[in-house]
Amino acid sequence: MVANRVKEIWAEGGTVCNGWLGIPDGVPAEFMAHQGWDSITIDCQHGLVELDAALPMLQALSTTDVTPILRVNWNDPAPIMKALDMGAMGIICPMINSREECERFVGACRYAPDGYRSVGPVRAALVHGGDYIPTANESVLTMAMIETKQAVERLDEILTTPGLDSIYVGPSDLSVSYGHSAGFDPKTPVVLDAIHKIAEAAKKHGIPAGIHTGSVAYGLEMVEAGYQFITILNDIRLMTWAAKNATTAFKAGAPAKNAP
Amino acid sequence: MVANRVKEIWAEGGTVCNGWLGIPDGVPAEFMAHQGWDSITIDCQHGLVELDAALPMLQALSTTDVTPILRVNWNDPAPIMKALDMGAMGIICPMINSREECERFVGACRYAPDGYRSVGPVRAALVHGGDYIPTANESVLTMAMIETKQAVERLDEILTTPGLDSIYVGPSDLSVSYGHSAGFDPKTPVVLDAIHKIAEAAKKHGIPAGIHTGSVAYGLEMVEAGYQFITILNDIRLMTWAAKNATTAFKAGAPAKNAP
Amino acid sequence: MVANRVKEIWAEGGTVCNGWLGIPDGVPAEFMAHQGWDSITIDCQHGLVELDAALPMLQALSTTDVTPILRVNWNDPAPIMKALDMGAMGIICPMINSREECERFVGACRYAPDGYRSVGPVRAALVHGGDYIPTANESVLTMAMIETKQAVERLDEILTTPGLDSIYVGPSDLSVSYGHSAGFDPKTPVVLDAIHKIAEAAKKHGIPAGIHTGSVAYGLEMVEAGYQFITILNDIRLMTWAAKNATTAFKAGAPAKNAP
Amino acid sequence: MVANRVKEIWAEGGTVCNGWLGIPDGVPAEFMAHQGWDSITIDCQHGLVELDAALPMLQALSTTDVTPILRVNWNDPAPIMKALDMGAMGIICPMINSREECERFVGACRYAPDGYRSVGPVRAALVHGGDYIPTANESVLTMAMIETKQAVERLDEILTTPGLDSIYVGPSDLSVSYGHSAGFDPKTPVVLDAIHKIAEAAKKHGIPAGIHTGSVAYGLEMVEAGYQFITILNDIRLMTWAAKNATTAFKAGAPAKNAP
Amino acid sequence: MVANRVKEIWAEGGTVCNGWLGIPDGVPAEFMAHQGWDSITIDCQHGLVELDAALPMLQALSTTDVTPILRVNWNDPAPIMKALDMGAMGIICPMINSREECERFVGACRYAPDGYRSVGPVRAALVHGGDYIPTANESVLTMAMIETKQAVERLDEILTTPGLDSIYVGPSDLSVSYGHSAGFDPKTPVVLDAIHKIAEAAKKHGIPAGIHTGSVAYGLEMVEAGYQFITILNDIRLMTWAAKNATTAFKAGAPAKNAP
Amino acid sequence: MVANRVKEIWAEGGTVCNGWLGIPDGVPAEFMAHQGWDSITIDCQHGLVELDAALPMLQALSTTDVTPILRVNWNDPAPIMKALDMGAMGIICPMINSREECERFVGACRYAPDGYRSVGPVRAALVHGGDYIPTANESVLTMAMIETKQAVERLDEILTTPGLDSIYVGPSDLSVSYGHSAGFDPKTPVVLDAIHKIAEAAKKHGIPAGIHTGSVAYGLEMVEAGYQFITILNDIRLMTWAAKNATTAFKAGAPAKNAP
Repeated sequence: MVANRVKEIWAEGGTVCNGWLGIPDGVPAEFMAHQGWDSITIDCQHGLVELDAALPMLQALSTTDVTPILRVNWNDPAPIMKALDMGAMGIICPMINSREECERFVGACRYAPDGYRSVGPVRAALVHGGDYIPTANESVLTMAMIETKQAVERLDEILTTPGLDSIYVGPSDLSVSYGHSAGFDPKTPVVLDAIHKIAEAAKKHGIPAGIHTGSVAYGLEMVEAGYQFITILNDIRLMTWAAKNATTAFKAGAPAKNAP
Repeated sequence: MVANRVKEIWAEGGTVCNGWLGIPDGVPAEFMAHQGWDSITIDCQHGLVELDAALPMLQALSTTDVTPILRVNWNDPAPIMKALDMGAMGIICPMINSREECERFVGACRYAPDGYRSVGPVRAALVHGGDYIPTANESVLTMAMIETKQAVERLDEILTTPGLDSIYVGPSDLSVSYGHSAGFDPKTPVVLDAIHKIAEAAKKHGIPAGIHTGSVAYGLEMVEAGYQFITILNDIRLMTWAAKNATTAFKAGAPAKNAP
Repeated sequence: MVANRVKEIWAEGGTVCNGWLGIPDGVPAEFMAHQGWDSITIDCQHGLVELDAALPMLQALSTTDVTPILRVNWNDPAPIMKALDMGAMGIICPMINSREECERFVGACRYAPDGYRSVGPVRAALVHGGDYIPTANESVLTMAMIETKQAVERLDEILTTPGLDSIYVGPSDLSVSYGHSAGFDPKTPVVLDAIHKIAEAAKKHGIPAGIHTGSVAYGLEMVEAGYQFITILNDIRLMTWAAKNATTAFKAGAPAKNAP
Repeated sequence: MVANRVKEIWAEGGTVCNGWLGIPDGVPAEFMAHQGWDSITIDCQHGLVELDAALPMLQALSTTDVTPILRVNWNDPAPIMKALDMGAMGIICPMINSREECERFVGACRYAPDGYRSVGPVRAALVHGGDYIPTANESVLTMAMIETKQAVERLDEILTTPGLDSIYVGPSDLSVSYGHSAGFDPKTPVVLDAIHKIAEAAKKHGIPAGIHTGSVAYGLEMVEAGYQFITILNDIRLMTWAAKNATTAFKAGAPAKNAP
Repeated sequence: MVANRVKEIWAEGGTVCNGWLGIPDGVPAEFMAHQGWDSITIDCQHGLVELDAALPMLQALSTTDVTPILRVNWNDPAPIMKALDMGAMGIICPMINSREECERFVGACRYAPDGYRSVGPVRAALVHGGDYIPTANESVLTMAMIETKQAVERLDEILTTPGLDSIYVGPSDLSVSYGHSAGFDPKTPVVLDAIHKIAEAAKKHGIPAGIHTGSVAYGLEMVEAGYQFITILNDIRLMTWAAKNATTAFKAGAPAKNAP
Repeated sequence: MVANRVKEIWAEGGTVCNGWLGIPDGVPAEFMAHQGWDSITIDCQHGLVELDAALPMLQALSTTDVTPILRVNWNDPAPIMKALDMGAMGIICPMINSREECERFVGACRYAPDGYRSVGPVRAALVHGGDYIPTANESVLTMAMIETKQAVERLDEILTTPGLDSIYVGPSDLSVSYGHSAGFDPKTPVVLDAIHKIAEAAKKHGIPAGIHTGSVAYGLEMVEAGYQFITILNDIRLMTWAAKNATTAFKAGAPAKNAP
């Protein structure tokens, strides 16, 4: 079977440290692939990436053994199947709010009879090896995004969807859905409460949960809360964080710990 | 006359904080343009950028008022003139080791009778305005790279080249040229000595000097040494520095000051 | 709040002169941005542009203060949300033929609780400023295309959709829908009648109406008819109109007024 | 009327030899266009091609008189209409399993009143000539993919869809749908039986049928079986077949008939 | 022999109407190819085009029978040979100021023993046919730019270079070289005098001369002066001329003859 | 030291089977990398590839352990140094006809004091590891093309250039240089004689020689003749050879051994 490092880490009870890409170019993808992430997700939803641009990024990730994941722009079979054919070993699908939506998503990732994915994994079979097709239904990772109040209320029906491997929390949409402002690392009690509730429900159903964070500190808190797949910012934000700190320190005339 | 913020800062006796781009894409260019740099240099020598890719990067820089500079891949009139026509307001030219080489470089940046730049500034005239052509010989910044022992020995002949606005030190090549290893922020006495000597010679001839650095700390030391144009790393290194720090801190289970 | 020049012009009772882009490249986009249009629409429906190509075009438009609009290829949340995240300040959505379709469109442009747009405006927040998210539901322009007989018959239900800012008439599809031939600037009575009826209904509901035209003359007639957003041809047709006139005049041996 | 060579060959009772493109680049497209294919299909489903990349490929095909066809990634009006506007003279649509799905597909290829294709054939009208719009409903080829057991069971309702010109068999998905393994040129009786049954049903309804094959030999068998549109592998597989044979022969120290 | 329409027109005593491309994209190239130009030149010097971008433009031109020419960015064998291999049937080379420079240029366009062009016309042989190599030294057009006072003084030595087919005048650089301001369609006596002198010298040596103009009117005057290859503006300027006229007329509230 | 598989094979007395890429895209590059070649050369001279396009191709090659080589478009330090910084582990340089030219080439591949390569191996250091810089002068392969009569006459001076690792014969240019026609696999005695003479001279100086061939058969003959680096056609020719054979066999109604 094709190895999926994310699934292996979970099988060992570990936590995945996930990188995130929003620049539509293979160069930052390749450099990020060498920075210690277990998996890296190409973001075709809020990142500035469409699938034409994701292809050389997937090639760049394949120069290392980091696990390539792709967040599609919507729960639509066309981008899901194309991303898998291009070699992504996991799909994060936004805005899953019901069992029906989750089945539509998972089905697009699975060959018949488990789903309705069309056969033709041109690059996936090249880079993942000859037994890709017969084992893809097992090796490909499916992650449904939980990011609305409605989804939280329907956690049980979603989490029990056959073929669903895991879930991923989008805290910013979740906050907005609960009537609070968008932003990384929410601390509002009702939102934080939902985040904990999701982790518990996932645990109950034996489904590893992931979450997007804006800092190492919050990421570690989420590990405490039971999350096993932690994303920390993305390529753009890491770059601008360091750049802004550097110009600020330079203009202030003194080196700073948060800048090179 | 078209404004060149770098020349204005120098006229005010100030120091330029310069950003550096090696990713061949307009997205990191636009994000970098908002991080507080006075000027940003697109690196077509050691960056992964050729001129086709530099064009959308120059457009991205034009969404802010940061001064766009381009380092060409060699002392060749074709890329120099094309970069200027594309809208760069300054050219950094590598490996200037003699007066003759410097004249060849500067001449490619100046319209007749001052030089031999061919007329046709298609994008430059669009974005810099109607009086671009008559004033370009004054507004366009020329920076010759001093990065070999030979160039240090010929500083006077190079620094007095008519039309030369400034010089830029490449410490890594300079180190290698003196028989030491490559790397950012050299501390080897003979190299450091050369770096100081260059600053003094530049000052003597009234030519602002710039230098490439790997840290805010070294950059500030160079300001002390008389440099007025300081580059701190580049887009790729800022991103990977922050990314590596983040994965290291996360895996160590504790937040760190040098990571978000 | 982020300024939207189109909304400001309408608030002042004025008419918007809108440019249109079909070439998938940032260079013509940037040159068009300097030709006096109040807004410019990137056409991802009938233009030769998909979203990967629209990104550098949006960056090119951001070098001026022209308002960037994008026509999506279909009433689908994925391209609508991506275009907004990429920085478009308005969306034109084709083929809105019912209240339900209009709600689906408008909802994709509005954050909860007004709609279901997912949060993550990576470039939009960069270029439009820090208060983009809280004010986007107001600043982002929604324009539903009225281009079938069915839509004309359902004008009232469409025009009263909460969150709909404006409508846009596609005269060619409208003609075909009424059984007449496609083409710019229709003069057929039944089509012209529908065009006037749309303007009147829009006025009744306080919704500014726009229309695509093939000439300044027809555009001015449409202003008379009550339209407040007039598109004149596109980048390709302007170029080929001038080019064809130039070669014709040159080959005829006499300059012509409609050629340079 | 715009000529469609595929339809002409069928009208003459002939068989179409169809090439297939999966590399997202105009260079292999142009070279393939000179190798003797009657038509060439750009594969936006399992090929590594999205529509931005298909555009220069369509331009490359237009340098010869090969008929350009495009397989869209899903039964979705947006890519179907865009591919036609870009100049494709035929659309292959995957996974048509019912009359309703077939009508949705065919309708997207036909202007009103035959369907709901939106008018604006920017490149199609340029390269196919002035009477493109009035005759497009006749000249554009529609091919529905039959690739599931369900579709085979509903052949009659699908084959009688008004406006459907032809069908195309995907043997790999068909095999999987019948519970067998994926792969080119299936020999499993139940699958082969379905393939023959499809050809017969198509013949009964006067609809030419096509099929994807992995070899000349199987292609010729399919001609025997009544298929009139035969695809043989694609650009990538032709290249890798010849390359692998060449390196194998070279390393074995002896020329081989299946290598150059 | 491969046909070169420019040479054929000259052989018939006619004048070539040449289009000009500065947008680095195949779409405007293909649309321009249908507007009545005899030849079209891709401008890699002052256009925003490098050779990577020129390739799909050359493919786009090959969809019609317009003669493709390319202006290289400098008198350098690398871009000259690559442009020819890519399929250009003529090269315009900037800044030829001496016999030696002209020989360097022409030699790069001719296979041994006439020159030193390296053999490997990958796309040229595909699109221009099987006898491309043996006849290329005759079919490929060489045009040396005359654009400095020095070149005017050395016209005889340049015009008698073996293998030189024609010359091309750059009026803007010529003006600057004579101490006057840059711009299209110079009227300054000393420059106009040089322009006439060039035409006469070319005629004396049996070499057709071409010139870049900014209007049909000036182009026709140049035909009177003996020029047989007239360029009128370029893609960008034709588009912006028509666009600016349209917005100006629309905002003035009255149609205008110089706008659609 | 960074491993260079080509040098290792030679050290073991073996022969390198080299692939060749002319399509400017990462997809065929990645597929070719899996077909059994020991090394693959990206051809920026006669291939349709400039350096912007070579970058994703180099990334695609890095997904396997094939050795990446690049043929530059001319003996120019700018593309040579850029290709090395991008990660090429070898450079093939066209048209080396003298010791001076060979020194200019080799010097551009070596850091001081062995040459004048500028330091900044941004991607090379990433993918080839931390000790890239100190060992690059040894690990990077330099191959000078011998392709003219003049070069054959100066073999000794060329072959003894310090730092030259190997030579590469271009048989087509060589044929033309000796007054014969271009083409693969020359059999003309004088040319064949030169080819053998080159192999012998190379052997005498302990320099492995390579050659470009059009068939496995000729390649094996060249191994007999002493060549240790054999290229067989390229991506485009392998694809078109198989495609043409397939359409020919299909249209003839019979499978063929030289087609799939």
